[in-house]
Amino acid sequence: MEQVERIGVSLEKKLLSSFDKLIAKQGYPSRSEAIRDLIRQQLSSERLSDPAAKAVAAVFVIYDHHSTKLMQEMVGMQHSHLLQTICSMHVHLDAHDCMEVIVLKGQVGEINKMGENILSLKGVKLGKANLISTEL
Amino acid sequence: MEQVERIGVSLEKKLLSSFDKLIAKQGYPSRSEAIRDLIRQQLSSERLSDPAAKAVAAVFVIYDHHSTKLMQEMVGMQHSHLLQTICSMHVHLDAHDCMEVIVLKGQVGEINKMGENILSLKGVKLGKANLISTEL
Amino acid sequence: MEQVERIGVSLEKKLLSSFDKLIAKQGYPSRSEAIRDLIRQQLSSERLSDPAAKAVAAVFVIYDHHSTKLMQEMVGMQHSHLLQTICSMHVHLDAHDCMEVIVLKGQVGEINKMGENILSLKGVKLGKANLISTEL
Amino acid sequence: MEQVERIGVSLEKKLLSSFDKLIAKQGYPSRSEAIRDLIRQQLSSERLSDPAAKAVAAVFVIYDHHSTKLMQEMVGMQHSHLLQTICSMHVHLDAHDCMEVIVLKGQVGEINKMGENILSLKGVKLGKANLISTEL
Repeated sequence: MEQVERIGVSLEKKLLSSFDKLIAKQGYPSRSEAIRDLIRQQLSSERLSDPAAKAVAAVFVIYDHHSTKLMQEMVGMQHSHLLQTICSMHVHLDAHDCMEVIVLKGQVGEINKMGENILSLKGVKLGKANLISTEL
Repeated sequence: MEQVERIGVSLEKKLLSSFDKLIAKQGYPSRSEAIRDLIRQQLSSERLSDPAAKAVAAVFVIYDHHSTKLMQEMVGMQHSHLLQTICSMHVHLDAHDCMEVIVLKGQVGEINKMGENILSLKGVKLGKANLISTEL
Repeated sequence: MEQVERIGVSLEKKLLSSFDKLIAKQGYPSRSEAIRDLIRQQLSSERLSDPAAKAVAAVFVIYDHHSTKLMQEMVGMQHSHLLQTICSMHVHLDAHDCMEVIVLKGQVGEINKMGENILSLKGVKLGKANLISTEL
Repeated sequence: MEQVERIGVSLEKKLLSSFDKLIAKQGYPSRSEAIRDLIRQQLSSERLSDPAAKAVAAVFVIYDHHSTKLMQEMVGMQHSHLLQTICSMHVHLDAHDCMEVIVLKGQVGEINKMGENILSLKGVKLGKANLISTEL
Protein backbone atom coordinates (compact mmCIF):
# COMPACT_ATOMS: atom_id res chain seq x y z
CA MET A 1 0.00 0.00 0.00
CA GLU A 2 1.43 3.35 -1.03
CA GLN A 3 1.72 6.13 1.53
CA VAL A 4 -0.82 8.86 1.16
CA GLU A 5 -0.40 12.52 2.00
CA ARG A 6 -3.04 15.19 2.46
CA ILE A 7 -2.55 18.72 1.16
CA GLY A 8 -4.73 21.81 1.29
CA VAL A 9 -5.78 23.62 -1.88
CA SER A 10 -7.48 27.00 -1.91
CA LEU A 11 -9.62 28.03 -4.83
CA GLU A 12 -12.39 30.45 -5.72
CA LYS A 13 -15.92 29.38 -4.70
CA LYS A 14 -17.19 29.70 -8.26
CA LEU A 15 -14.36 27.63 -9.70
CA LEU A 16 -14.92 24.93 -7.08
CA SER A 17 -18.62 24.73 -7.83
CA SER A 18 -17.99 24.43 -11.60
CA PHE A 19 -15.43 21.70 -10.90
CA ASP A 20 -17.83 19.83 -8.62
CA LYS A 21 -20.48 19.85 -11.38
CA LEU A 22 -18.02 18.58 -13.98
CA ILE A 23 -16.65 15.70 -11.92
CA ALA A 24 -20.15 14.65 -10.87
CA LYS A 25 -21.04 14.43 -14.56
CA GLN A 26 -17.89 12.46 -15.31
CA GLY A 27 -18.67 10.09 -12.45
CA TYR A 28 -15.78 10.74 -10.08
CA PRO A 29 -16.35 9.45 -6.52
CA SER A 30 -14.37 12.32 -4.94
CA ARG A 31 -12.50 15.55 -5.65
CA SER A 32 -9.21 13.92 -4.63
CA GLU A 33 -9.63 11.21 -7.25
CA ALA A 34 -10.38 13.80 -9.94
CA ILE A 35 -7.44 16.01 -8.98
CA ARG A 36 -5.08 13.04 -8.86
CA ASP A 37 -6.12 12.20 -12.41
CA LEU A 38 -5.48 15.76 -13.59
CA ILE A 39 -2.03 15.64 -12.01
CA ARG A 40 -1.18 12.26 -13.54
CA GLN A 41 -2.27 13.43 -17.00
CA GLN A 42 -0.13 16.54 -16.68
CA LEU A 43 2.91 14.51 -15.59
CA SER A 44 2.33 11.97 -18.35
CA SER A 45 2.10 14.55 -21.14
CA GLU A 46 5.18 16.33 -19.77
CA ARG A 47 7.19 13.13 -19.88
CA LEU A 48 6.04 12.17 -23.35
CA SER A 49 7.86 15.22 -24.69
CA ASP A 50 11.14 13.44 -23.87
CA PRO A 51 12.01 10.92 -26.65
CA ALA A 52 13.97 8.83 -24.14
CA ALA A 53 11.14 8.47 -21.60
CA LYS A 54 9.54 5.06 -21.12
CA ALA A 55 6.00 4.66 -22.32
CA VAL A 56 3.32 2.21 -23.36
CA ALA A 57 1.24 2.82 -26.45
CA ALA A 58 -1.86 1.47 -28.07
CA VAL A 59 -1.43 1.95 -31.80
CA PHE A 60 -4.70 1.35 -33.55
CA VAL A 61 -5.12 0.98 -37.26
CA ILE A 62 -8.06 0.45 -39.58
CA TYR A 63 -7.38 -1.44 -42.78
CA ASP A 64 -9.00 -3.52 -45.47
CA HIS A 65 -8.25 -7.16 -44.74
CA HIS A 66 -8.31 -7.88 -48.49
CA SER A 67 -4.85 -6.35 -48.67
CA THR A 68 -3.42 -9.61 -47.40
CA LYS A 69 0.15 -8.48 -47.77
CA LEU A 70 -0.48 -5.85 -45.14
CA MET A 71 -1.36 -8.37 -42.46
CA GLN A 72 1.88 -10.24 -43.10
CA GLU A 73 3.87 -7.01 -43.04
CA MET A 74 2.32 -5.93 -39.76
CA VAL A 75 3.01 -9.28 -38.12
CA GLY A 76 6.56 -9.21 -39.48
CA MET A 77 7.09 -5.70 -38.18
CA GLN A 78 5.90 -6.69 -34.74
CA HIS A 79 8.26 -9.65 -34.59
CA SER A 80 11.23 -7.60 -35.70
CA HIS A 81 10.58 -5.19 -32.83
CA LEU A 82 10.03 -7.84 -30.19
CA LEU A 83 11.15 -5.63 -27.35
CA GLN A 84 8.53 -3.03 -28.11
CA THR A 85 5.53 -5.13 -29.05
CA ILE A 86 3.61 -6.76 -26.24
CA CYS A 87 0.48 -8.02 -27.92
CA SER A 88 -2.20 -7.15 -30.40
CA MET A 89 -5.92 -7.58 -30.83
CA HIS A 90 -7.91 -7.89 -34.02
CA VAL A 91 -11.48 -6.63 -34.45
CA HIS A 92 -13.80 -7.22 -37.41
CA LEU A 93 -15.53 -3.93 -38.12
CA ASP A 94 -17.53 -4.80 -41.25
CA ALA A 95 -17.27 -6.82 -44.46
CA HIS A 96 -14.14 -4.94 -45.51
CA ASP A 97 -12.54 -3.23 -42.59
CA CYS A 98 -10.59 -4.58 -39.68
CA MET A 99 -9.14 -2.82 -36.73
CA GLU A 100 -5.94 -3.88 -35.07
CA VAL A 101 -4.83 -2.61 -31.68
CA ILE A 102 -1.10 -3.09 -31.14
CA VAL A 103 0.33 -2.54 -27.67
CA LEU A 104 3.91 -1.33 -27.64
CA LYS A 105 6.32 -0.72 -24.77
CA GLY A 106 9.57 1.17 -25.01
CA GLN A 107 11.02 4.64 -25.39
CA VAL A 108 8.81 7.44 -26.68
CA GLY A 109 11.06 8.03 -29.70
CA GLU A 110 11.13 4.36 -30.72
CA ILE A 111 7.39 3.96 -30.28
CA ASN A 112 6.68 7.01 -32.42
CA LYS A 113 9.03 5.71 -35.12
CA MET A 114 7.33 2.31 -35.17
CA GLY A 115 3.91 3.96 -35.08
CA GLU A 116 4.82 5.96 -38.19
CA ASN A 117 6.04 2.82 -39.91
CA ILE A 118 2.77 1.04 -39.23
CA LEU A 119 0.55 3.96 -40.24
CA SER A 120 2.42 4.43 -43.54
CA LEU A 121 1.90 0.83 -44.68
CA LYS A 122 -0.06 0.47 -47.91
CA GLY A 123 -3.62 -0.61 -47.07
CA VAL A 124 -3.78 1.08 -43.67
CA LYS A 125 -6.64 3.56 -43.96
CA LEU A 126 -6.43 5.36 -40.68
CA GLY A 127 -4.66 5.05 -37.42
CA LYS A 128 -3.40 6.72 -34.33
CA ALA A 129 -0.75 6.06 -31.75
CA ASN A 130 -1.80 6.76 -28.20
CA LEU A 131 1.07 7.01 -25.73
CA ILE A 132 1.03 7.05 -21.95
CA SER A 133 4.08 7.57 -19.79
CA THR A 134 4.71 4.70 -17.38
CA GLU A 135 7.11 6.58 -15.15
CA LEU A 136 4.60 7.94 -12.67
CA MET B 1 -12.46 -3.26 -55.69
CA GLU B 2 -13.18 0.41 -55.24
CA GLN B 3 -12.98 2.75 -58.22
CA VAL B 4 -9.94 4.97 -58.23
CA GLU B 5 -9.68 8.48 -59.66
CA ARG B 6 -6.57 10.48 -60.51
CA ILE B 7 -6.37 14.20 -59.80
CA GLY B 8 -3.62 16.77 -60.38
CA VAL B 9 -2.21 18.81 -57.54
CA SER B 10 0.12 21.78 -58.02
CA LEU B 11 2.47 22.83 -55.27
CA GLU B 12 5.68 24.78 -54.74
CA LYS B 13 8.90 22.89 -55.53
CA LYS B 14 10.29 23.54 -52.04
CA LEU B 15 7.12 22.31 -50.33
CA LEU B 16 7.11 19.16 -52.47
CA SER B 17 10.72 18.38 -51.67
CA SER B 18 10.11 18.79 -47.91
CA PHE B 19 7.07 16.54 -48.20
CA ASP B 20 9.03 13.90 -50.12
CA LYS B 21 11.66 13.84 -47.38
CA LEU B 22 9.06 13.51 -44.64
CA ILE B 23 7.13 10.64 -46.23
CA ALA B 24 10.36 8.79 -47.07
CA LYS B 25 11.27 9.01 -43.36
CA GLN B 26 7.81 7.80 -42.35
CA GLY B 27 8.08 4.91 -44.79
CA TYR B 28 5.31 5.72 -47.27
CA PRO B 29 5.55 3.79 -50.58
CA SER B 30 4.12 6.71 -52.62
CA ARG B 31 2.91 10.31 -52.45
CA SER B 32 -0.65 9.20 -53.24
CA GLU B 33 -0.70 6.91 -50.22
CA ALA B 34 0.58 9.70 -47.96
CA ILE B 35 -1.89 12.25 -49.30
CA ARG B 36 -4.80 9.80 -48.97
CA ASP B 37 -3.83 9.35 -45.32
CA LEU B 38 -3.79 13.12 -44.73
CA ILE B 39 -7.23 13.41 -46.31
CA ARG B 40 -8.67 10.53 -44.27
CA GLN B 41 -7.31 12.00 -41.03
CA GLN B 42 -8.83 15.37 -41.87
CA LEU B 43 -12.22 13.81 -42.66
CA SER B 44 -12.09 11.68 -39.54
CA SER B 45 -11.31 14.58 -37.19
CA GLU B 46 -14.03 16.67 -38.86
CA ARG B 47 -16.60 13.94 -38.26
CA LEU B 48 -15.60 13.34 -34.69
CA SER B 49 -16.79 16.86 -33.87
CA ASP B 50 -20.35 15.62 -34.44
CA PRO B 51 -21.64 13.78 -31.32
CA ALA B 52 -23.99 11.72 -33.51
CA ALA B 53 -21.32 10.44 -35.92
CA LYS B 54 -20.40 6.76 -35.82
CA ALA B 55 -16.98 5.89 -34.52
CA VAL B 56 -14.80 3.18 -33.07
CA ALA B 57 -12.58 3.86 -30.11
CA ALA B 58 -9.79 2.23 -28.24
CA VAL B 59 -10.05 3.35 -24.64
CA PHE B 60 -6.95 2.43 -22.76
CA VAL B 61 -6.54 2.57 -19.04
CA ILE B 62 -3.75 1.86 -16.62
CA TYR B 63 -4.71 0.65 -13.17
CA ASP B 64 -3.47 -1.25 -10.16
CA HIS B 65 -4.91 -4.76 -10.31
CA HIS B 66 -4.95 -4.88 -6.52
CA SER B 67 -8.04 -2.71 -6.63
CA THR B 68 -10.10 -5.79 -7.42
CA LYS B 69 -13.39 -3.94 -7.29
CA LEU B 70 -12.29 -1.93 -10.27
CA MET B 71 -11.96 -4.96 -12.51
CA GLN B 72 -15.49 -6.05 -11.63
CA GLU B 73 -16.83 -2.56 -12.23
CA MET B 74 -15.15 -2.32 -15.62
CA VAL B 75 -16.48 -5.68 -16.73
CA GLY B 76 -19.92 -4.72 -15.45
CA MET B 77 -19.80 -1.43 -17.28
CA GLN B 78 -18.88 -3.15 -20.50
CA HIS B 79 -21.74 -5.60 -20.24
CA SER B 80 -24.27 -2.89 -19.51
CA HIS B 81 -23.20 -1.10 -22.69
CA LEU B 82 -23.22 -4.19 -24.88
CA LEU B 83 -23.92 -2.26 -28.03
CA GLN B 84 -20.83 -0.16 -27.62
CA THR B 85 -18.27 -2.61 -26.33
CA ILE B 86 -16.75 -5.02 -28.81
CA CYS B 87 -13.87 -6.56 -26.92
CA SER B 88 -11.05 -5.82 -24.56
CA MET B 89 -7.48 -6.89 -24.01
CA HIS B 90 -5.55 -7.09 -20.79
CA VAL B 91 -1.80 -6.45 -20.51
CA HIS B 92 0.41 -6.99 -17.44
CA LEU B 93 2.75 -4.03 -17.22
CA ASP B 94 4.58 -4.75 -13.98
CA ALA B 95 4.01 -6.16 -10.50
CA HIS B 96 1.30 -3.60 -9.80
CA ASP B 97 0.02 -2.09 -12.97
CA CYS B 98 -2.21 -3.50 -15.67
CA MET B 99 -3.33 -1.97 -18.90
CA GLU B 100 -6.71 -2.66 -20.40
CA VAL B 101 -7.60 -1.72 -23.96
CA ILE B 102 -11.35 -1.57 -24.49
CA VAL B 103 -12.70 -1.32 -28.02
CA LEU B 104 -15.99 0.54 -28.30
CA LYS B 105 -18.28 1.14 -31.26
CA GLY B 106 -21.11 3.63 -31.38
CA GLN B 107 -21.87 7.31 -31.58
CA VAL B 108 -19.15 9.81 -30.71
CA GLY B 109 -21.20 11.29 -27.87
CA GLU B 110 -21.95 7.90 -26.27
CA ILE B 111 -18.36 6.74 -26.59
CA ASN B 112 -17.04 9.89 -24.94
CA LYS B 113 -19.56 9.49 -22.13
CA MET B 114 -18.53 5.89 -21.50
CA GLY B 115 -14.86 6.84 -21.82
CA GLU B 116 -15.35 9.44 -19.06
CA ASN B 117 -17.12 6.89 -16.88
CA ILE B 118 -14.26 4.44 -17.23
CA LEU B 119 -11.52 7.01 -16.66
CA SER B 120 -13.21 8.34 -13.53
CA LEU B 121 -13.38 4.94 -11.79
CA LYS B 122 -11.49 4.72 -8.53
CA GLY B 123 -8.21 2.88 -9.11
CA VAL B 124 -7.76 3.93 -12.74
CA LYS B 125 -4.48 5.83 -12.78
CA LEU B 126 -4.38 7.10 -16.31
CA GLY B 127 -6.22 6.62 -19.51
CA LYS B 128 -7.20 8.00 -22.86
CA ALA B 129 -9.96 7.46 -25.35
CA ASN B 130 -8.83 7.38 -28.96
CA LEU B 131 -11.65 7.77 -31.47
CA ILE B 132 -11.66 7.20 -35.21
CA SER B 133 -14.60 7.95 -37.45
CA THR B 134 -15.79 4.91 -39.39
CA GLU B 135 -17.83 6.84 -41.93
CA LEU B 136 -15.12 7.30 -44.53
CA MET C 1 -12.45 40.08 -4.36
CA GLU C 2 -13.79 36.61 -4.98
CA GLN C 3 -14.45 34.29 -2.07
CA VAL C 4 -11.91 31.56 -1.61
CA GLU C 5 -12.50 28.10 -0.21
CA ARG C 6 -9.98 25.58 1.08
CA ILE C 7 -10.34 21.87 0.34
CA GLY C 8 -8.22 18.86 1.29
CA VAL C 9 -6.78 16.57 -1.34
CA SER C 10 -5.12 13.25 -0.55
CA LEU C 11 -2.59 11.77 -2.92
CA GLU C 12 0.25 9.25 -2.98
CA LYS C 13 3.59 10.54 -1.67
CA LYS C 14 5.37 9.63 -4.91
CA LEU C 15 2.79 11.38 -7.06
CA LEU C 16 2.99 14.50 -4.90
CA SER C 17 6.77 14.61 -5.13
CA SER C 18 6.69 14.27 -8.94
CA PHE C 19 4.08 17.03 -9.09
CA ASP C 20 6.16 19.29 -6.84
CA LYS C 21 9.17 18.84 -9.15
CA LEU C 22 7.12 19.61 -12.25
CA ILE C 23 5.52 22.79 -10.93
CA ALA C 24 8.84 24.05 -9.59
CA LYS C 25 10.25 23.62 -13.11
CA GLN C 26 7.26 25.40 -14.62
CA GLY C 27 7.66 28.23 -12.14
CA TYR C 28 4.45 27.97 -10.10
CA PRO C 29 4.53 29.88 -6.79
CA SER C 30 2.30 27.29 -5.04
CA ARG C 31 0.51 23.96 -5.43
CA SER C 32 -2.86 25.70 -5.18
CA GLU C 33 -2.04 27.93 -8.15
CA ALA C 34 -0.95 24.92 -10.23
CA ILE C 35 -4.03 22.87 -9.33
CA ARG C 36 -6.36 25.80 -10.05
CA ASP C 37 -4.79 26.02 -13.51
CA LEU C 38 -5.32 22.31 -14.14
CA ILE C 39 -8.97 22.66 -13.11
CA ARG C 40 -9.54 25.72 -15.31
CA GLN C 41 -7.98 23.99 -18.32
CA GLN C 42 -10.19 20.96 -17.79
CA LEU C 43 -13.32 23.11 -17.49
CA SER C 44 -12.34 25.15 -20.54
CA SER C 45 -11.76 22.14 -22.78
CA GLU C 46 -15.03 20.59 -21.57
CA ARG C 47 -16.95 23.73 -22.50
CA LEU C 48 -15.32 24.10 -25.90
CA SER C 49 -16.98 20.84 -26.95
CA ASP C 50 -20.31 22.69 -26.91
CA PRO C 51 -20.77 24.72 -30.14
CA ALA C 52 -23.03 27.18 -28.32
CA ALA C 53 -20.58 27.99 -25.50
CA LYS C 54 -19.00 31.43 -25.41
CA ALA C 55 -15.32 31.66 -26.16
CA VAL C 56 -12.49 33.91 -27.23
CA ALA C 57 -10.01 32.81 -29.84
CA ALA C 58 -6.69 33.88 -31.23
CA VAL C 59 -6.61 32.76 -34.85
CA PHE C 60 -3.16 33.08 -36.21
CA VAL C 61 -2.21 32.81 -39.84
CA ILE C 62 1.02 32.97 -41.80
CA TYR C 63 0.82 34.28 -45.35
CA ASP C 64 2.83 35.89 -48.10
CA HIS C 65 2.04 39.61 -48.13
CA HIS C 66 2.60 39.67 -51.89
CA SER C 67 -0.82 38.10 -52.28
CA THR C 68 -2.37 41.53 -51.77
CA LYS C 69 -5.88 40.30 -52.42
CA LEU C 70 -5.64 38.16 -49.34
CA MET C 71 -5.11 41.11 -47.03
CA GLN C 72 -8.19 42.81 -48.42
CA GLU C 73 -10.22 39.63 -48.09
CA MET C 74 -9.16 39.14 -44.48
CA VAL C 75 -10.01 42.70 -43.55
CA GLY C 76 -13.34 42.38 -45.35
CA MET C 77 -14.10 39.15 -43.58
CA GLN C 78 -13.38 40.71 -40.21
CA HIS C 79 -15.67 43.64 -40.87
CA SER C 80 -18.52 41.43 -42.00
CA HIS C 81 -18.29 39.55 -38.71
CA LEU C 82 -18.07 42.61 -36.51
CA LEU C 83 -19.59 40.87 -33.53
CA GLN C 84 -16.93 38.21 -33.51
CA THR C 85 -13.79 40.14 -34.35
CA ILE C 86 -12.25 42.26 -31.62
CA CYS C 87 -8.89 43.24 -33.05
CA SER C 88 -5.92 41.97 -34.95
CA MET C 89 -2.16 42.35 -34.93
CA HIS C 90 0.24 42.14 -37.82
CA VAL C 91 3.82 40.84 -37.54
CA HIS C 92 6.53 40.93 -40.21
CA LEU C 93 8.30 37.58 -40.12
CA ASP C 94 10.71 37.93 -43.04
CA ALA C 95 10.93 39.37 -46.55
CA HIS C 96 7.94 37.33 -47.68
CA ASP C 97 5.93 36.11 -44.76
CA CYS C 98 3.62 37.93 -42.42
CA MET C 99 1.76 36.69 -39.41
CA GLU C 100 -1.62 38.00 -38.43
CA VAL C 101 -3.20 37.30 -35.06
CA ILE C 102 -6.96 37.84 -35.12
CA VAL C 103 -8.84 37.87 -31.83
CA LEU C 104 -12.43 36.66 -32.08
CA LYS C 105 -15.22 36.53 -29.52
CA GLY C 106 -18.44 34.61 -29.88
CA GLN C 107 -19.87 31.11 -29.85
CA VAL C 108 -17.54 28.15 -30.31
CA GLY C 109 -19.36 27.03 -33.47
CA GLU C 110 -19.24 30.46 -35.11
CA ILE C 111 -15.60 30.97 -34.23
CA ASN C 112 -14.65 27.61 -35.70
CA LYS C 113 -16.58 28.41 -38.88
CA MET C 114 -14.85 31.76 -39.29
CA GLY C 115 -11.50 30.18 -38.44
CA GLU C 116 -12.01 27.66 -41.26
CA ASN C 117 -12.93 30.45 -43.65
CA ILE C 118 -9.76 32.36 -42.85
CA LEU C 119 -7.47 29.32 -43.02
CA SER C 120 -8.87 28.29 -46.41
CA LEU C 121 -8.15 31.64 -48.08
CA LYS C 122 -5.76 31.44 -51.02
CA GLY C 123 -2.34 32.68 -49.91
CA VAL C 124 -2.67 31.61 -46.27
CA LYS C 125 0.16 29.14 -45.74
CA LEU C 126 -0.50 27.93 -42.25
CA GLY C 127 -2.69 28.78 -39.36
CA LYS C 128 -4.39 27.64 -36.22
CA ALA C 129 -7.36 28.72 -34.19
CA ASN C 130 -6.81 28.64 -30.45
CA LEU C 131 -10.01 28.79 -28.38
CA ILE C 132 -10.49 29.40 -24.69
CA SER C 133 -13.81 29.25 -22.92
CA THR C 134 -14.72 32.49 -21.15
CA GLU C 135 -17.44 30.98 -18.97
CA LEU C 136 -15.29 30.11 -16.01
CA MET D 1 7.54 33.86 -57.55
CA GLU D 2 8.19 30.33 -56.38
CA GLN D 3 8.35 27.53 -58.93
CA VAL D 4 5.34 25.29 -58.97
CA GLU D 5 5.23 21.61 -59.80
CA ARG D 6 2.24 19.45 -60.70
CA ILE D 7 1.90 15.91 -59.37
CA GLY D 8 -0.76 13.24 -59.89
CA VAL D 9 -2.59 11.72 -56.93
CA SER D 10 -4.85 8.68 -57.21
CA LEU D 11 -7.57 8.11 -54.65
CA GLU D 12 -10.83 6.23 -54.24
CA LYS D 13 -13.91 7.92 -55.77
CA LYS D 14 -15.75 7.87 -52.46
CA LEU D 15 -12.86 9.43 -50.57
CA LEU D 16 -12.50 12.14 -53.21
CA SER D 17 -16.19 13.01 -53.05
CA SER D 18 -16.10 13.27 -49.22
CA PHE D 19 -13.02 15.45 -49.49
CA ASP D 20 -14.66 17.71 -52.08
CA LYS D 21 -17.66 18.20 -49.78
CA LEU D 22 -15.45 19.05 -46.81
CA ILE D 23 -13.29 21.60 -48.60
CA ALA D 24 -16.34 23.26 -50.17
CA LYS D 25 -17.74 23.67 -46.64
CA GLN D 26 -14.44 25.06 -45.40
CA GLY D 27 -14.33 27.50 -48.31
CA TYR D 28 -11.27 26.31 -50.23
CA PRO D 29 -11.03 27.63 -53.82
CA SER D 30 -9.37 24.43 -55.11
CA ARG D 31 -8.25 20.92 -54.15
CA SER D 32 -4.61 21.92 -54.63
CA GLU D 33 -4.93 24.69 -52.07
CA ALA D 34 -6.54 22.32 -49.56
CA ILE D 35 -3.93 19.61 -50.08
CA ARG D 36 -1.08 22.10 -49.81
CA ASP D 37 -2.51 23.17 -46.44
CA LEU D 38 -2.69 19.57 -45.22
CA ILE D 39 0.93 19.04 -46.24
CA ARG D 40 2.11 22.24 -44.56
CA GLN D 41 0.32 21.34 -41.33
CA GLN D 42 1.90 17.89 -41.35
CA LEU D 43 5.37 19.33 -41.94
CA SER D 44 4.85 21.97 -39.27
CA SER D 45 3.73 19.50 -36.59
CA GLU D 46 6.62 17.18 -37.48
CA ARG D 47 9.12 19.99 -37.04
CA LEU D 48 7.64 21.17 -33.77
CA SER D 49 8.65 17.86 -32.20
CA ASP D 50 12.29 19.00 -32.47
CA PRO D 51 13.17 21.37 -29.57
CA ALA D 52 15.85 23.05 -31.72
CA ALA D 53 13.54 23.86 -34.66
CA LYS D 54 12.67 27.49 -35.32
CA ALA D 55 9.12 28.55 -34.68
CA VAL D 56 6.79 31.45 -34.02
CA ALA D 57 4.19 31.27 -31.31
CA ALA D 58 1.17 33.17 -30.16
CA VAL D 59 0.93 32.68 -26.41
CA PHE D 60 -2.39 33.89 -25.17
CA VAL D 61 -3.31 34.38 -21.56
CA ILE D 62 -6.41 35.49 -19.72
CA TYR D 63 -5.91 37.28 -16.41
CA ASP D 64 -7.52 39.65 -13.98
CA HIS D 65 -6.04 43.10 -14.53
CA HIS D 66 -6.54 43.87 -10.86
CA SER D 67 -3.48 41.76 -10.15
CA THR D 68 -1.29 44.67 -11.15
CA LYS D 69 1.92 42.93 -10.26
CA LEU D 70 1.23 40.39 -12.97
CA MET D 71 1.24 43.00 -15.73
CA GLN D 72 4.63 44.24 -14.57
CA GLU D 73 6.00 40.72 -14.34
CA MET D 74 4.82 39.87 -17.85
CA VAL D 75 6.33 43.00 -19.33
CA GLY D 76 9.57 42.34 -17.45
CA MET D 77 9.66 38.75 -18.67
CA GLN D 78 9.21 39.90 -22.25
CA HIS D 79 12.03 42.37 -22.01
CA SER D 80 14.40 39.85 -20.47
CA HIS D 81 13.77 37.53 -23.42
CA LEU D 82 14.12 40.20 -26.10
CA LEU D 83 15.24 37.76 -28.75
CA GLN D 84 12.09 35.73 -28.43
CA THR D 85 9.41 38.34 -27.95
CA ILE D 86 8.26 40.27 -31.01
CA CYS D 87 5.19 42.09 -29.80
CA SER D 88 2.06 41.74 -27.77
CA MET D 89 -1.56 42.86 -27.91
CA HIS D 90 -3.92 43.59 -25.07
CA VAL D 91 -7.68 42.99 -25.20
CA HIS D 92 -10.27 44.03 -22.62
CA LEU D 93 -12.67 41.13 -22.23
CA ASP D 94 -14.93 42.40 -19.45
CA ALA D 95 -14.82 44.40 -16.21
CA HIS D 96 -12.28 42.00 -14.71
CA ASP D 97 -10.58 39.97 -17.37
CA CYS D 98 -7.99 40.92 -19.93
CA MET D 99 -6.45 38.87 -22.66
CA GLU D 100 -2.88 39.31 -23.77
CA VAL D 101 -1.52 37.79 -26.97
CA ILE D 102 2.26 37.58 -26.94
CA VAL D 103 4.08 36.72 -30.16
CA LEU D 104 7.36 34.87 -29.67
CA LYS D 105 10.02 33.80 -32.13
CA GLY D 106 12.81 31.37 -31.42
CA GLN D 107 13.54 27.70 -30.88
CA VAL D 108 10.68 25.36 -29.98
CA GLY D 109 12.29 24.41 -26.66
CA GLU D 110 12.87 28.01 -25.59
CA ILE D 111 9.38 29.09 -26.60
CA ASN D 112 7.81 26.25 -24.62
CA LYS D 113 9.92 27.14 -21.60
CA MET D 114 8.88 30.81 -21.75
CA GLY D 115 5.27 29.79 -22.39
CA GLU D 116 5.34 27.72 -19.18
CA ASN D 117 6.81 30.62 -17.26
CA ILE D 118 4.06 32.94 -18.42
CA LEU D 119 1.23 30.48 -17.78
CA SER D 120 2.45 29.74 -14.25
CA LEU D 121 2.41 33.40 -13.14
CA LYS D 122 0.07 34.14 -10.25
CA GLY D 123 -3.05 35.82 -11.61
CA VAL D 124 -3.00 34.15 -15.02
CA LYS D 125 -6.28 32.24 -15.20
CA LEU D 126 -5.91 30.38 -18.43
CA GLY D 127 -3.61 30.31 -21.39
CA LYS D 128 -2.22 28.39 -24.29
CA ALA D 129 0.88 28.52 -26.42
CA ASN D 130 0.26 27.96 -30.11
CA LEU D 131 3.38 27.17 -32.11
CA ILE D 132 3.92 27.09 -35.86
CA SER D 133 7.14 26.00 -37.51
CA THR D 134 8.61 28.68 -39.76
CA GLU D 135 10.97 26.37 -41.63
CA LEU D 136 8.62 25.47 -44.45
